[in-house]
Amino acid sequence: MGKWKRRRGVSALDDVAGNGLINRRALLGSGLAIAGTGAAGVTGAAAEALTDAPWSLEFGGNTPAVQTPSPFEKVERALSNPNKEFRNSHARTPHHLLGGTVTPSSLHFSINHCGIPNIDPAQHKLVIHGMVRQPLEFTLETLSRYPLVTRMAFVECAGNSAPMFAKEPLQVTTQMLHGLVSNSEWTGVPLSILLDEAGIDPKAKWLVAEGADAQMLDRSVPVKKAYDDAMIAIYQNGEHLMPGNGYPMRLLLPGYQGNMNVKFLRRIKAIDQPAYSYFETKNYSQILPGGKTWRFHFVMEVKSFITHPSFGLSLKDPGLYAISGVAYSGTGRISKVLVSADGGKSWGEAALQGPIHEKAFTRFVMPWRWDGQPAVLLSRAYDDGGNVQPLRAEFVANRGEAKNPITTPLAFPNQHYNSTTAWAVDSKGEIKHVYA
Amino acid sequence: MGKWKRRRGVSALDDVAGNGLINRRALLGSGLAIAGTGAAGVTGAAAEALTDAPWSLEFGGNTPAVQTPSPFEKVERALSNPNKEFRNSHARTPHHLLGGTVTPSSLHFSINHCGIPNIDPAQHKLVIHGMVRQPLEFTLETLSRYPLVTRMAFVECAGNSAPMFAKEPLQVTTQMLHGLVSNSEWTGVPLSILLDEAGIDPKAKWLVAEGADAQMLDRSVPVKKAYDDAMIAIYQNGEHLMPGNGYPMRLLLPGYQGNMNVKFLRRIKAIDQPAYSYFETKNYSQILPGGKTWRFHFVMEVKSFITHPSFGLSLKDPGLYAISGVAYSGTGRISKVLVSADGGKSWGEAALQGPIHEKAFTRFVMPWRWDGQPAVLLSRAYDDGGNVQPLRAEFVANRGEAKNPITTPLAFPNQHYNSTTAWAVDSKGEIKHVYA
Repeated sequence: MGKWKRRRGVSALDDVAGNGLINRRALLGSGLAIAGTGAAGVTGAAAEALTDAPWSLEFGGNTPAVQTPSPFEKVERALSNPNKEFRNSHARTPHHLLGGTVTPSSLHFSINHCGIPNIDPAQHKLVIHGMVRQPLEFTLETLSRYPLVTRMAFVECAGNSAPMFAKEPLQVTTQMLHGLVSNSEWTGVPLSILLDEAGIDPKAKWLVAEGADAQMLDRSVPVKKAYDDAMIAIYQNGEHLMPGNGYPMRLLLPGYQGNMNVKFLRRIKAIDQPAYSYFETKNYSQILPGGKTWRFHFVMEVKSFITHPSFGLSLKDPGLYAISGVAYSGTGRISKVLVSADGGKSWGEAALQGPIHEKAFTRFVMPWRWDGQPAVLLSRAYDDGGNVQPLRAEFVANRGEAKNPITTPLAFPNQHYNSTTAWAVDSKGEIKHVYA
Repeated sequence: MGKWKRRRGVSALDDVAGNGLINRRALLGSGLAIAGTGAAGVTGAAAEALTDAPWSLEFGGNTPAVQTPSPFEKVERALSNPNKEFRNSHARTPHHLLGGTVTPSSLHFSINHCGIPNIDPAQHKLVIHGMVRQPLEFTLETLSRYPLVTRMAFVECAGNSAPMFAKEPLQVTTQMLHGLVSNSEWTGVPLSILLDEAGIDPKAKWLVAEGADAQMLDRSVPVKKAYDDAMIAIYQNGEHLMPGNGYPMRLLLPGYQGNMNVKFLRRIKAIDQPAYSYFETKNYSQILPGGKTWRFHFVMEVKSFITHPSFGLSLKDPGLYAISGVAYSGTGRISKVLVSADGGKSWGEAALQGPIHEKAFTRFVMPWRWDGQPAVLLSRAYDDGGNVQPLRAEFVANRGEAKNPITTPLAFPNQHYNSTTAWAVDSKGEIKHVYA
């Protein structure tokens, strides 16, 4: 069983909430010792006599031009269409197998309605036209000459977490529930600079952004957003965009629903009203109980989920653990994350890993002493705009549940799902998805 | 030729230094228009009648479980030992082809003296022993249970930039000059927590860290550094470490020379004096003019280099460009970066892309109007510890030059090279490496 010791004058640790949640101040500064995390004691003689492993005794493998993960790592995106049928494909980020805040570009989620185009960047052009003084044409090369800006931002599909509309909790991983959101460092040209260069008409209030793949997705974007923080992204985590994330260029609208961040961007047209395109009036409209819909509901709401521990990652022994996950809000910065280990009866405040970026993942960490008894873990995020992540019961009361039982996490009846997620730990350390 | 226009009340742009450097305030806020970056004007009719490219007319490729860069991207690390000979291997980051601040893990630099071990994480153990109350043994799985911390940090080989000790400037890319530094988001366990758990003796002032590969590199690390910001890193940019960067765990000593960040970490022994190991008394000792050496010189000094434009990336036409590069310091945060376009006669302050992390890359950007005449571009970094990147003449006056002409960028006579780098642009836009 875990115990905490004091050293160098730091006071002993207090529980801050039920079922063993420990004050996050335990993590600040040095001088705190944790015992009970599973580290094994050995004798000094055994430590000195450390046996060499096979890889300590022979020359290792070659250093490749592009390195890839260890063959011992089996970390992949879950695919909705592995047999390459002529329909849409979803690839989900395995959050339960990742740490930190950056999503490796190889594992960034990707949804493609008509496959992934193999675009020659020397042939691809972006045109800005419509209500502008001078229509302009850009290539990857000309965009690269502009002063580029760099920022962290999440991109989330409006349909992420939709499996949680199901009446009964699906027994699937965080990847299957919440894998349609990812977080990257994006680098590109502020869209405002390009609109100014084209001389946008002050009467133009909307932009229609269009992709170059066969889907030719087009979405209406307020000009106001373009002048706030929109960019034409050309780098993702330091390298050019991945093909499934919009190579060679995409629109990045931090905090706005994923499909508006138009990939393979080829056209931006300035107009005086929204386009009411197919993809914004049918595919991505938000149906509410009673049959009404939200019109132009863009911002992804405040949300968090626990990645460690979670479904598929069981606990070995009682003792100390860190409960950890990601939180984000399309409105702004995460201001706090509360964690419960007793199904929401009591809550403690988690430590946030800074710096806290606007409209980007924030990793939260809460030390936890598991006593081997059943527990229910929840996280709940708050943002600096005063928004609070709803509990599931609150959420479905307002937004409804699936009418029919959902048998696959790929089916969903609705969008913009952002309630809390609960993981129940049983006395064996096995973890189930529950509604709490 | 480029020109800048005003819009929405932002004042017209001023040159801040010779040869066309423009005040960085041009980049702050919106409302500034740039013309002359190479964007082509088109007619509105032509924009409306945009011709579909082949990839707009057919279903694209499959969505893979792990995505890789576009086949049009040929971005690789330069290898010193491509034929897999039984000697050390260097793989260099192609900074001139990257943007932003994160180095993709696939392209992080890697130096391996005895190849890359293929370590089974279920078999690998880390032992903390020596002057401790209770020696302890950790696995990747037990380390994963601790509260993890996440931070940005560069890692730089002490031999990075050594080709610039050559008496004549080598005509090679930024990758070949400065490719032995990279920047990542690292996640792991603070070393202080583990030392406290083992109960380190207050009389222990040093740690000896040892790797599990056949090289069995061992280096002495002050206990003070362990309690400052050292961690046992287990994630790099969100996923487990790359094999060439220390999988399954490495020591991370932010700001300290690369080889001290021991990869494949298997042992940390607390002792009361440094070990004076082979690798710290011979391989990585710093020889000064006169034959003396620095003893235990750990911190990598303040440095910057321009990545865009640079050798290998020529300018097409006169007009507006962004001069961009990376700056970092092992001491702390970058406080400012000055840029010159006239070989150091005059300097302007570049814009820094925030947030500015301690001991991590900061991207700087300086708008520049190239008039088609010869120019010499330089960047010079300052850190918040009051350190200034030396000019090359100052640097070699103190530290010496190579005795013999260096014909390959892989040969180097010395370490901790951090002077400014100069790129000369000729009237055709071709770029050479010069000493200025």
